[in-house]
This record gives sequence, C-alpha cells and structure tokens, in this order.
Amino acid sequence: MATLGADLDGVAAGHVAIAMPIEPRLSQQNGFLHAGVVVAALDSACGYAALTLMPEDAEVLSVEFKVNLLAPASGDRLVAEGNVVRAGRTLTVCGGDAYAEQGAERVHVATMLATMVRRQAG
Amino acid sequence: MATLGADLDGVAAGHVAIAMPIEPRLSQQNGFLHAGVVVAALDSACGYAALTLMPEDAEVLSVEFKVNLLAPASGDRLVAEGNVVRAGRTLTVCGGDAYAEQGAERVHVATMLATMVRRQAG
Amino acid sequence: MATLGADLDGVAAGHVAIAMPIEPRLSQQNGFLHAGVVVAALDSACGYAALTLMPEDAEVLSVEFKVNLLAPASGDRLVAEGNVVRAGRTLTVCGGDAYAEQGAERVHVATMLATMVRRQAG
Amino acid sequence: MATLGADLDGVAAGHVAIAMPIEPRLSQQNGFLHAGVVVAALDSACGYAALTLMPEDAEVLSVEFKVNLLAPASGDRLVAEGNVVRAGRTLTVCGGDAYAEQGAERVHVATMLATMVRRQAG
Repeated sequence: MATLGADLDGVAAGHVAIAMPIEPRLSQQNGFLHAGVVVAALDSACGYAALTLMPEDAEVLSVEFKVNLLAPASGDRLVAEGNVVRAGRTLTVCGGDAYAEQGAERVHVATMLATMVRRQAG
Repeated sequence: MATLGADLDGVAAGHVAIAMPIEPRLSQQNGFLHAGVVVAALDSACGYAALTLMPEDAEVLSVEFKVNLLAPASGDRLVAEGNVVRAGRTLTVCGGDAYAEQGAERVHVATMLATMVRRQAG
Repeated sequence: MATLGADLDGVAAGHVAIAMPIEPRLSQQNGFLHAGVVVAALDSACGYAALTLMPEDAEVLSVEFKVNLLAPASGDRLVAEGNVVRAGRTLTVCGGDAYAEQGAERVHVATMLATMVRRQAG
Repeated sequence: MATLGADLDGVAAGHVAIAMPIEPRLSQQNGFLHAGVVVAALDSACGYAALTLMPEDAEVLSVEFKVNLLAPASGDRLVAEGNVVRAGRTLTVCGGDAYAEQGAERVHVATMLATMVRRQAG
C-alpha cells in the first residue's frame, strides 16, 4: 500500500478504512483511477479488517474476491472500507466498499466480497 | 418461490425480505437446508429488491451472483434480505443476506453480491 | 442430489459430470429450470470433482461460488461438469459448467467458479 | 496497460493474451507481484477478448469480476489470457487465467470470471 500512498483512516474490531490520494500516475488517460488500484485498496482494507480479529502475529492471504465496479473513480481521494462479515478459525469473509471523494462529495465506486485465509506459520 | 413456500416479509424502496419455513423436504439428511434453496431465496430477494426501483411492468434477470456460505442453515425459518447497492438504467447491483431463525435466535448463513439486468420488453 | 434425480455421468481425477432430467416440478411456469437447481447441480459437480483428488474418507464444504447464468435451461437433461483448477491441502478451487440438452442440441446455460474447503474430521 | 509495460501476446476471435515483465517496482517486498497488477492484467485480457467479437469502434467496461488467487506471482514474465465464454448483445462473459513464467516453468497464479458490458456510444 505504500506504493499507492495509502494511509489507515480508521481502525476498529472488524473494520478498517484506508485512504489514498487519487494521483495522475495511477490514473488512466481519461483521469479515472485504474480498476486495479481500486481493487488493491479494497483487498488491503479487507485483509486488514480480518487481521483486527486475529492474534498480533497472524498473517492473512486473499483466497478470492468479487468486485462490482459501480462508477468511475475520480476526484481527490479514494477511501476503501473493509468489514468482517464472518470470522472463522481459518477463513474470514469480508465486505469492502470504495468511495471517491471530491470536496464534500462522495461517490460509491466499487463493492467487494472477499474470502481471506489465515496463513499457516512458516 | 411458491415452490419453496416463501412469502414477502418486508418491502421498501430498494429493499425486500423473503421468509420461508425450513422444511424437511428441502433439507439434506443432516437436517440442513440445501445450499441451492438458500441461493434461490437470496437470488429472489435481490431480484425483487431491484424491481422496487423500476416501473411496474419491468422484469429482471440475474446476470450473475457470488455467494459465501457462512454457516449451515437449520431451524424454523429462513429469511433472505435483498438490498440495492446501485441502480442503473440497465444493470442493478444488489447485496443479499440470509438468516436461519429458531425461536429468538438468528444465524447469518449466507451473503450474496449479485448483478441483475432489466429485461428488454419482448 | 438424490432429490434432483441426479446421476454421476463421468468421473476422472479432478473431473466429475452429473446428469439429471429436467422435470416440470423443478421448473418455473415458463418451463425453465430454477436457477437454484442449476446452481445446486454445479455446486455438487464442483464438490465431487474436489473429492476425486482427496483421500477416500475426506469431506468438502463449499466456501463460496460465483455463477454466471448464460441462458435459460430447458430441454430433456441438465449436465453439470466440475473441474479442479487448483487442489491445495485445505482449499480447492473448481470451475463448473452446466449444459441443457435436448436431443443432439446442447446449450451452455451457466458457468461457476468455486472455492471448496476440506472439512476437518469431527 | 502501458503503465505496466504490457504487450499483446496473441489475439484470435474471442481470445487475447497479454504479456508483461514482472518488475520490482510492481512487486511487494517479498518479490511477489501485487495482486492488483495481476487483476488489472486479467481484467484487460478479458476486456480485449470481448472486443474481438465486437464492431471496430465498440468499447467495453467491466461490470464485475471474481478472481481466485492460486499462487504468488514471481519470475520473469506474467501472461494473462482472456477468453469469451458467452457473447451477448449487451453483456459478454469472459474467463481469464494468469500465469507467471520463469524460463521454461509456468505457474497458474490466478483465474477470473468476469462480466463486461458494451458501452453505449456517447
């Protein structure tokens, strides 16, 4: 996420929000953020949300996710929120929602449903 | 849905809840409702939710859906809720959640993310 | 699957085909098979395909699946094929394809991408 | 895709392959390609595959996709293949598979099932 200039914008048990500036270098010619960047932000938010319910040294991997792209992402800032839907011993299911913000306006640009797996220790 | 003995349990703009008894004939040997029945109920709830935001004579078809099965469904009653995430002219994105109820207890058994298309008039 | 009158139509390592008659009692008023039935057949084909690569006493559960409904299913017979895409120790990823057959004609009615988990022994 | 240094590696009716070098700037600290990059490559391969079956001036947008991440992507080159599963007037369903190559070795790193919509002319 460092590559994307992303910061944690909020953390609670089972919930994480990540925010990042929408920069030209991550956008297409039409000014919209690449779908891959939106997906990466959502994937990270979901992964971090899963981690909030695990022991400190736990690691998670994304097994799979589905994303619906709802609107093109442009503006000043992208916020990706991840929420745990169900936490299991091995598998955690998370939902994610991404919003593009410009000033006071907020557009829902994508929604994700993801499965995370707790990584076995080395 | 008539086959499943399902009834509308709640309707609002962009939201529908369907309820049905959990019957032995729709269950497996272990007493759990068939996943296909849970999916059918979620699919219907999502389709009806999409219809609440369309003209009266509109019809919708499911393009695709993803379902995470969270827990086995047993008990007295299955409730499937559908919510519109984004309504477009042609495509509507919906989220669905299914709960198995036994007395006052309620278990979240599945979650769906679906894409519906408005059917072109014949 | 017994409820659906389904039979194994082919089994190989990592591959299973299930066939079932398309019966009025499983169809909608328009004569098309319920999406829930198509999904149940695909889910079973994927689960059995995963089992072909496991020890004899293993059991699998569906974690999640995504289905694209490609065409309405009508005709004499539904065939659901499941194929293992990647078999892991805990998780197996499978693809499934469903076809509706009438005489010599075969229509691709749905495609599935699914994640199965090996069930921990009781 | 230019940002990723991607080139078309093969084109046929309903099929496209994209290849790109696996570069450190697109990789994580552990040397594995970011999932967002793999997803972007698969999404592009699926979109281009859909375009091969459309008139020359057509444009497509991704409605949604599901991705299963099968293995970490490292090596010299990433190849993403997109194939049309069903082409409709408005919606096209595509499957995608991504492979990481190092010398003669090829690892299946991800599989996608996607829905594309033909964009209405402005």
